[in-house]
Amino acid sequence: ISVDAVKPSDTFPRRHNSATPDEQTHMAKFCGFDHIDSLIDATVPKSIRLDSMKFSKFDAGLTESQMIQHMVDLASKNKVFKSFIGMGYYNTHVPTVILRNIMENPAWYTQYTPYQAEISQGRLESLLNFQTVITDLTGLPMSNASLLDEGTAAAEAMAMCNNILKGKKKTFVIASNCHPQTIDVCKTRADGFDLKVVTSDLKDIDYSSGDVCGVLVQYPGTEGEVLDYAEFVKNAHANGVKVVMATDLLALTVLKPPGEFGADIVVGSAQRFGVPMGYGGPHAAFLATSQEYKRMMPGRIIGISVDSSGKQALRMAMQTREQHIRRDKATSNICTAQALLANMAAMYAVYHGPAGLKSIAQRVHGLAGIFSLGLNKLGVAEVQELPFFDTVKIKCSDAHAIADAASKSEINLRVVDSTTITASFDETTTLDDVDKLFKVFASGKPVPFTAESLAPEVQNSIPSSLTRESPYLTHPIFNMYHTEHELLRYIHKLQSKDLSLCHSMIPLGSCTMKLNATTEMMPVTWPSFTDIHPFAPVEQAQGYQEMFENLGDLLCTITGFDSFSLQPNAGAAGEYAGLMVIRAYHMSRGDHHRNVCIIPVSAHGTNPASAAMCGMKIITVGTDAKGNINIEEVRKAAEANKDNLAALMVTYPSTHGVYEEGIDEICNIIHENGGQVYMDGANMNAQVGLTSPGFIGADVCHLNLHKTFCIPHGGGGPGMGPIGVKNHLAPFLPSHPVIPTGGIPQPEKTAPLGAISAAPWGSALILPISYTYIAMMGSGGLTDASKIAILNANYMAKRLEKHYPVLFRGVNGTVAHEFIIDLRGFKNTAGIEPEDVAKRLMDYGFHGPTMSWPVPGTLMIEPTESESKAELDRFCDALISIREEIAQIEKGNADVQNNVLKGAPHPPSLLMADTWKKPYSREYAAFPAPWLRSSKFWPTTGRVDNVYGDRKLVCTLLPEEEQVAAAVSA
Amino acid sequence: ISVDAVKPSDTFPRRHNSATPDEQTHMAKFCGFDHIDSLIDATVPKSIRLDSMKFSKFDAGLTESQMIQHMVDLASKNKVFKSFIGMGYYNTHVPTVILRNIMENPAWYTQYTPYQAEISQGRLESLLNFQTVITDLTGLPMSNASLLDEGTAAAEAMAMCNNILKGKKKTFVIASNCHPQTIDVCKTRADGFDLKVVTSDLKDIDYSSGDVCGVLVQYPGTEGEVLDYAEFVKNAHANGVKVVMATDLLALTVLKPPGEFGADIVVGSAQRFGVPMGYGGPHAAFLATSQEYKRMMPGRIIGISVDSSGKQALRMAMQTREQHIRRDKATSNICTAQALLANMAAMYAVYHGPAGLKSIAQRVHGLAGIFSLGLNKLGVAEVQELPFFDTVKIKCSDAHAIADAASKSEINLRVVDSTTITASFDETTTLDDVDKLFKVFASGKPVPFTAESLAPEVQNSIPSSLTRESPYLTHPIFNMYHTEHELLRYIHKLQSKDLSLCHSMIPLGSCTMKLNATTEMMPVTWPSFTDIHPFAPVEQAQGYQEMFENLGDLLCTITGFDSFSLQPNAGAAGEYAGLMVIRAYHMSRGDHHRNVCIIPVSAHGTNPASAAMCGMKIITVGTDAKGNINIEEVRKAAEANKDNLAALMVTYPSTHGVYEEGIDEICNIIHENGGQVYMDGANMNAQVGLTSPGFIGADVCHLNLHKTFCIPHGGGGPGMGPIGVKNHLAPFLPSHPVIPTGGIPQPEKTAPLGAISAAPWGSALILPISYTYIAMMGSGGLTDASKIAILNANYMAKRLEKHYPVLFRGVNGTVAHEFIIDLRGFKNTAGIEPEDVAKRLMDYGFHGPTMSWPVPGTLMIEPTESESKAELDRFCDALISIREEIAQIEKGNADVQNNVLKGAPHPPSLLMADTWKKPYSREYAAFPAPWLRSSKFWPTTGRVDNVYGDRKLVCTLLPEEEQVAAAVSA
Repeated sequence: ISVDAVKPSDTFPRRHNSATPDEQTHMAKFCGFDHIDSLIDATVPKSIRLDSMKFSKFDAGLTESQMIQHMVDLASKNKVFKSFIGMGYYNTHVPTVILRNIMENPAWYTQYTPYQAEISQGRLESLLNFQTVITDLTGLPMSNASLLDEGTAAAEAMAMCNNILKGKKKTFVIASNCHPQTIDVCKTRADGFDLKVVTSDLKDIDYSSGDVCGVLVQYPGTEGEVLDYAEFVKNAHANGVKVVMATDLLALTVLKPPGEFGADIVVGSAQRFGVPMGYGGPHAAFLATSQEYKRMMPGRIIGISVDSSGKQALRMAMQTREQHIRRDKATSNICTAQALLANMAAMYAVYHGPAGLKSIAQRVHGLAGIFSLGLNKLGVAEVQELPFFDTVKIKCSDAHAIADAASKSEINLRVVDSTTITASFDETTTLDDVDKLFKVFASGKPVPFTAESLAPEVQNSIPSSLTRESPYLTHPIFNMYHTEHELLRYIHKLQSKDLSLCHSMIPLGSCTMKLNATTEMMPVTWPSFTDIHPFAPVEQAQGYQEMFENLGDLLCTITGFDSFSLQPNAGAAGEYAGLMVIRAYHMSRGDHHRNVCIIPVSAHGTNPASAAMCGMKIITVGTDAKGNINIEEVRKAAEANKDNLAALMVTYPSTHGVYEEGIDEICNIIHENGGQVYMDGANMNAQVGLTSPGFIGADVCHLNLHKTFCIPHGGGGPGMGPIGVKNHLAPFLPSHPVIPTGGIPQPEKTAPLGAISAAPWGSALILPISYTYIAMMGSGGLTDASKIAILNANYMAKRLEKHYPVLFRGVNGTVAHEFIIDLRGFKNTAGIEPEDVAKRLMDYGFHGPTMSWPVPGTLMIEPTESESKAELDRFCDALISIREEIAQIEKGNADVQNNVLKGAPHPPSLLMADTWKKPYSREYAAFPAPWLRSSKFWPTTGRVDNVYGDRKLVCTLLPEEEQVAAAVSA
Repeated sequence: ISVDAVKPSDTFPRRHNSATPDEQTHMAKFCGFDHIDSLIDATVPKSIRLDSMKFSKFDAGLTESQMIQHMVDLASKNKVFKSFIGMGYYNTHVPTVILRNIMENPAWYTQYTPYQAEISQGRLESLLNFQTVITDLTGLPMSNASLLDEGTAAAEAMAMCNNILKGKKKTFVIASNCHPQTIDVCKTRADGFDLKVVTSDLKDIDYSSGDVCGVLVQYPGTEGEVLDYAEFVKNAHANGVKVVMATDLLALTVLKPPGEFGADIVVGSAQRFGVPMGYGGPHAAFLATSQEYKRMMPGRIIGISVDSSGKQALRMAMQTREQHIRRDKATSNICTAQALLANMAAMYAVYHGPAGLKSIAQRVHGLAGIFSLGLNKLGVAEVQELPFFDTVKIKCSDAHAIADAASKSEINLRVVDSTTITASFDETTTLDDVDKLFKVFASGKPVPFTAESLAPEVQNSIPSSLTRESPYLTHPIFNMYHTEHELLRYIHKLQSKDLSLCHSMIPLGSCTMKLNATTEMMPVTWPSFTDIHPFAPVEQAQGYQEMFENLGDLLCTITGFDSFSLQPNAGAAGEYAGLMVIRAYHMSRGDHHRNVCIIPVSAHGTNPASAAMCGMKIITVGTDAKGNINIEEVRKAAEANKDNLAALMVTYPSTHGVYEEGIDEICNIIHENGGQVYMDGANMNAQVGLTSPGFIGADVCHLNLHKTFCIPHGGGGPGMGPIGVKNHLAPFLPSHPVIPTGGIPQPEKTAPLGAISAAPWGSALILPISYTYIAMMGSGGLTDASKIAILNANYMAKRLEKHYPVLFRGVNGTVAHEFIIDLRGFKNTAGIEPEDVAKRLMDYGFHGPTMSWPVPGTLMIEPTESESKAELDRFCDALISIREEIAQIEKGNADVQNNVLKGAPHPPSLLMADTWKKPYSREYAAFPAPWLRSSKFWPTTGRVDNVYGDRKLVCTLLPEEEQVAAAVSA
């Protein structure tokens, strides 16, 4: 028998890469090539083609069981201490019904942003619930559907203050009672807007310069104090200064809400609402503001509208202010946010309800009160007199000695300075924990009482003036689902409305909706990865650290770069970080003036938005007839700005789905004129193993781990956008004020940027997904993945070209890993828009491709390597069938206004209505393809009215009476 | 602050028990009682009412996080050694996509047996796939949809041989090459049929007595040998003896299948097809036979039929031979089998496909070959010469010394006797493992080679005469879903067709479809529980053993009994075990003649079927007008048979949903006449904390852990049926031939029954579910559960009584935890049967109650305590709305044949058909209640034609061409 025959059988690449060798050859021949490799050779320009890629570790790829064992070994190197560190990260009981049915459920985590509302009503309702939780608890009427973390949310609020005052006031004041990571992120961000950040104690804040646009305070403070901000806000407003409050949702169930102080903007993290700390993330942050500033809010916002039959339907509202439309004028570069974590936090609020949340808050406050009383009785330390919610500040002779004693009992305290400690209590703290703390602080002296015995003596430390009176979460949704069966059914009711990768391929161009394999996802919910605080001593997280080292090496090999930062926690955050590193590099060479950024017109909206955030002057260059970047325009722009050129932002292969031949020449032009090349990693799925940004000539690139490297899209996040750099940029990779970090592998010299995310390694908890993907695929499996992704795209382009013109092709007539089909012709011949085709695809059981980007009037299709030939054929058959339906309109057999495309999608309620007035049959609308007879995913609404939704903007749950009225009218 | 305010907040009872205190009082008042306790006092007879229940452990109930921590501690006491024990249990790689999307997915594990085919087509298709895997691999044309384990499957085959020969031949021969546990289970079972089991070596088997009905052989043998049975079978048939072969599915991918030897019946376990060993179970066993004996097969069988519009639809076929219809004449007492595990094994075959399975088998055989070659080269032991598949038999000087050396390297070998060891290789074995084994056997001597280096020298040890030639698993379903995306979508496609507790309450009377909470389910897939071999030394499973001890104590407190056996792995198995213990007790007192068993006519079908299996003479007693057992008839029957009376089988509260007042008197009558009282545990949900079988006077009872104690129904299994006994019966609780076991707590004297399941503690892996339920609820939570279950039933009865007559009530006009509504009147007034109401309920999004049992023409409703008042009201509203629909027929406003009930269920394909010829509107058929507009679960077929299905019996996947033809004709 051969040795291979006895090698382990549970290999992974064949489960991820769909096409079998026979299918690969069959499809290559269909595209006119005798073998997949000849197609690849004709597609990837020789000049940039890597001959091979080799990993120092996992080169052959681990099997699925070997991978699980490796992660078990890593997990065993993480020590889970009981955390009282606080600072925005708290232990929480993730209700297991939410853990299993959302965080571990592919029907909730494999969708992307709800672009197609009619097949996304489930997560849209849950995100609306999230917005209602935020508006109710903060006391401000408008909230978005999640931001990346508390630090960047505060920075977005700072930018809003700058915009509200039209950039006329250039100073932003931050009170020293804010979390240190928030202060640092704001400082880094301010740099880009040439805003000046001034930090000062609350009592010393001074607006007399007349140049202050906004002030940020923390409520409760980072050291726990709960202060009355009524006067503070009045005074700020009197000076024309906007007030931003960073706050804590659990505290707001018992504290007077910021809205009632008159705060203008409120930010914070929803982590402690049932989302694990995960060594830094992912968590859903929030931003709420008044009606007045709603059009300046960053991020996605969900709104209520109606569908074609007048029934209530939800959608993404006010998209015109977002980056994919307003580009460099956008309010922010946010694209992928934290949808999955916002849904978990919203369901936590639904499951506990107002009374449940309040009892958790009172319990946490009670335990903190017992601890404070106990310490006073012990007389070993002096407890801060000010009112607190969950965090007790202690003055003591030797803070480090106490912290060391605590860590012997596997407890982490926060050492503020050599004589100050804070202890933050949370939902998981028990009376035993408090007794343990007494022993630590008593350092050997007997403790003459127990925590339980002190309870009756403890008073509520929150003054009545700051005690919350106003009701919250009164809507039925927060008061109906408090048993596990009821919440299970509510979760499944919403799940049944959302199409996901559990139903069919989702060919969204430049989103790379590939397989999120179960083995990759399993470690994400293991306690040794979920329950570690981001600021825990690094020795307690050696499993994570070893993974970061390995992942850094692997990503450097894949990208041809020398060092990686894992801190940026979304694609857009990675772009911003990459440009800021370039900026720091130029500054380090005295080139402060180098602020010009050349960006092709076809670049993703987040590119110009990110450049704007770095204060760069954007010069847009066009593309030639073949859709490639116009090299001459680049040369001209580079030379014209050679003294001030900072960077070129380029996506490769191009956002037109083509391997431009002159990419290496373009890089040379930029370098010759003193610029740096920033490469957007959105299309890395066409590079891995075949070429690399470093090899092509880029200086820095960001990766979208939630695209190329299998982190699931989560319904709109979480994402991760680490950046790789060549050596000369490595010193500038961001560090962190609490836990120093930087490039992996570590560069010799470091002159790091300030933090660009609140946590040192961004959303660390989801890094195991990309790590296991790379380690199981090995270098060969990853290279095959890129080849098959390109083969699959070319096979679909070939099948469709007779029916839909393929807009751009490479020199040898092939496309890269995605391609654009041109629908512009149908506008005149049949009055058909890309949206009509996307809505009709829903009736065939498919999510549409990317609409009208990068070229208006087109659809961009990206199949990825994990879709089988059968699924590619099924999608092509659907588009071809729709093409025939368009032909009927063109031939006049179908009415231009009232046809099966304009009427799409057709939900069951429409198809089963007693009266059917459409000029086409019910069955043709419902079952236009044979496979739909055996099982079909039904859209749940008719087409959603976007105009109505933006005109009558409602972004929280309708009060019950209105809801009933809306339902009755439907 | 109060001490309670700082107690942990993640308590469990409020998540399981639905009704809040206010709702309890409101519902009690609705039923005419001022408080829930007064309703309970009026319902549970004073004479049998317990005043309280107190646990020695977990009395107050652990919180969810405390429970998880406790299970983590127990798991850490289990040592997972690498098992080479074999004997029917093998390590296997559970594909993680199946682990997460079936074994950890409430949408697959919360349904019950597919009684209502139109809302169960998903798992019906998967079970049909299972039957096709079994028929293809065994080479016999008919397979059932799973049995409990290999041992009981062999015993069922023995009973078939007895029935085939009409009981005229009373000897069954078992070859000594069968697994020891199989031999022991058959011996115990034969006792009941007064069959004689003779074990002998293959070569000494002698049919000359003319009294042999069947012979059982193992292929490959328990010590690994692969023999040619061609001659053996011919010889048996020549003597009129039926041949039963116990076999191994993985072996049959490379070995000549039993069907091709002419075997009559083939049995075995599908465990190694992706189902964890779980310290003994649950696993799906199988039984296949020829067309000739199909009507004598035990268990559920899935068949293909058509629905009302002629489209292919699946259903449970040949039900008339099952216990719920043929009672004591049934072919077996099997009810709940192992559906969830059969679905996992079927999906394993779908995911690997024929080539994949064969490569796993060849790899396993290759590793065994390398081991055998290596041992020969080492010269330390003598390897058996006979051909083998995966198990190598070794002769050595001191087997125990080698086994001890092995356990030092955390390896378990099988010690057959002091000089014989076998080592079984499986899918998870690696070359490193084989090298480790060489070191163990070399006991210190150097090993001059590696496993890998030997590979080229290894020959295939299977002779060509026994090498499989015939193809298998050729159907497209086994060849289309080999990537993770494709299998994920196939699993979700089937899932979307099945209604489960994720959608709505399933009020099946006497099935207790209560919450299967996520926290209870999580430990079931932890490696320290899944990866332990049932015959591993008990010291390696101390976590399990401690749990068994605790669970035994808790169950004794709940039932008022003295000792528990956890071995019976289904409800029916528990009934059989209980009666066999009674039988052994009588025999121990010389009362061999005591074989009369009194059974009320209203008893569950499994009762008489189990009594028949114990060779008991069944005397049926009637019920009085109020539905209670006729006490005088019992007295008369008991006294008439006082010399031969063995037992009474009684269910309490009665299967009519009423607490009979005279139950303690009935127990006395039986005891006075020398009989024992066996109590069926099906209705324990109305007893826990309020009364108990022991307190009432029963001697033995079985519990359905998959009903009262939260093990999910799994789509038709797994179940667990442990039995509790009073002291005098404790000595007879079953032991096990390989790992001795018995009652927990252990009785002083033991005279144990032989094994009644193949594994010492039955399906040990799912015991954590019931254990965590009891430990989190505590005695108070469990008692409240019973009260609320009774309250919920009475509330529904009260709401429905004006619309449907409630058939039986207790003395104070209340019902127990379930009740029967009488539909018999509608047959004449509207031509309506219970089935019509059940099918119409599907259009309202509900699974129907239990139909026509225990009383024909009725529906039995059991809500359980975990359904909220809102859900109870919704179900009542649906039934009341259906009552109005019936009234329309009664008033002549609707046609008796062509009305909305007779037409139900209405699948989308029907509702959207272009032509609609029904006399009622589409919308009335589709949306008869307001809640259906916001989200609805759609039945996927019209009503299934049961008669057609049994006439044209097809119980495997149709070959593709026929399938296409069927689809086209639809």
